[in-house]
Amino acid sequence: MPSEVRVIGLDGIPEVVPGDDLVAMIAESLDRGGLAIEDGDVLVITQKIVSKAEGRLLKLEGIEPSPLAITFAEEFDKDPRGVEAVLREARRIVRMERGVLIAETKHGWVCANAGLDRSNVFGEEVVCLLPLDSDASAAAIRDGLTARYGVAPAVIISDSFGRPWRKGITNIAIGMAGMLPFADYRGVTDPSGHDLRITIMAVADELAAAAELVHGKIDRRPVALIRGYDYPRGDGKATDMVLEAEKDLFR
Amino acid sequence: MPSEVRVIGLDGIPEVVPGDDLVAMIAESLDRGGLAIEDGDVLVITQKIVSKAEGRLLKLEGIEPSPLAITFAEEFDKDPRGVEAVLREARRIVRMERGVLIAETKHGWVCANAGLDRSNVFGEEVVCLLPLDSDASAAAIRDGLTARYGVAPAVIISDSFGRPWRKGITNIAIGMAGMLPFADYRGVTDPSGHDLRITIMAVADELAAAAELVHGKIDRRPVALIRGYDYPRGDGKATDMVLEAEKDLFR
Repeated sequence: MPSEVRVIGLDGIPEVVPGDDLVAMIAESLDRGGLAIEDGDVLVITQKIVSKAEGRLLKLEGIEPSPLAITFAEEFDKDPRGVEAVLREARRIVRMERGVLIAETKHGWVCANAGLDRSNVFGEEVVCLLPLDSDASAAAIRDGLTARYGVAPAVIISDSFGRPWRKGITNIAIGMAGMLPFADYRGVTDPSGHDLRITIMAVADELAAAAELVHGKIDRRPVALIRGYDYPRGDGKATDMVLEAEKDLFR
Repeated sequence: MPSEVRVIGLDGIPEVVPGDDLVAMIAESLDRGGLAIEDGDVLVITQKIVSKAEGRLLKLEGIEPSPLAITFAEEFDKDPRGVEAVLREARRIVRMERGVLIAETKHGWVCANAGLDRSNVFGEEVVCLLPLDSDASAAAIRDGLTARYGVAPAVIISDSFGRPWRKGITNIAIGMAGMLPFADYRGVTDPSGHDLRITIMAVADELAAAAELVHGKIDRRPVALIRGYDYPRGDGKATDMVLEAEKDLFR
């Protein structure tokens, strides 16, 4: 029998607004699909709905842009309040060119616009910020699902990031609970005993990427259930995936 | 009904040696699993077996190391012939520190050791090089499967690459046939009409990452069949994913 991993996109999760109970929404969607959480399941949830549920939204209206935000916005025809919001979420600006802002967030992620998205909630123009602590967000959702189903899934919070060297963006893990980010194959030889690789696979990122295949355009299905993957169990954090500058030979 | 993408790891593909017919091996494995290629299928094949089948192997014994290879190998206790093999596959050395060689290959990929793996074939120590043209390799396998099944799958050749900013490696696409590397969501608004994103998803890389979840340790199942994903059809190439330095704000 071939081994199989199933990536199931949960349907019918409505537009999320601040204060929504994501656990209840996920459970309702699972019910409708005739599904329940089973041991070994991984739930991948896009950052956007987590941020919205947690109220990580900033009204553009109330933002006072700094002189730097105004200068950059004027040069590239952007909204200075949006630029200011990005600057406030940044620990460090990596690049600021041609209207693009690549920033290192307070969590340590390097991404466009410090992970901010422009959005519209309750008819107001807002920017949607990353969760304060996506690992904690994942843990809270995991606890809620465990209380409901009596089984603990692994939970990943995903976001879409660009990357150096390659075009396009892919989904990666910015939060997790109930699993380790890496499968460590160091010292493992292949079945024929021939090949040895020094390999630490970032499986949390691969699970996030797999889930994106069912999220669909603009996160139409913001939650995916991955079943059949023997993920590395443990108490890991997405922030364990940040590669320190001094160890990063790719930078 | 929830939407579902199935990632199926093909079992029983034997150790590949130069001259092997991968199409026949894949077809035998599909047969054993009671599977046939269907319209919409994506086959993800790890680079290692493609390289081996194509004889992209270099005996360490016959390699004459250059002075640079000898200097670097001596400092970091490495095999100077292996270092020389990497240097010969490189178009440019990106970093050369602490025993690590990050190189840009002649194809444009930036990766550790120019994509070389040490291996053992027919009892001899060899290095396994990347295919000369992985897009052409993918096209040849696709043609062979199409002739056999009367249906053309998309084919991706994958490899495991490190990346800046984040720890661990993930599988990405280095060759493809019968699909486009990107799903282009520019100008698409979400179902509620609220959010607009400028988003080009590198779905070929996400398919490669999803496949890795069933390849298992050291590519024990080097071929994965992905079924149920509505991939972007067209005549794309993995080399279209190379981001030119002057456009790369992440570098």
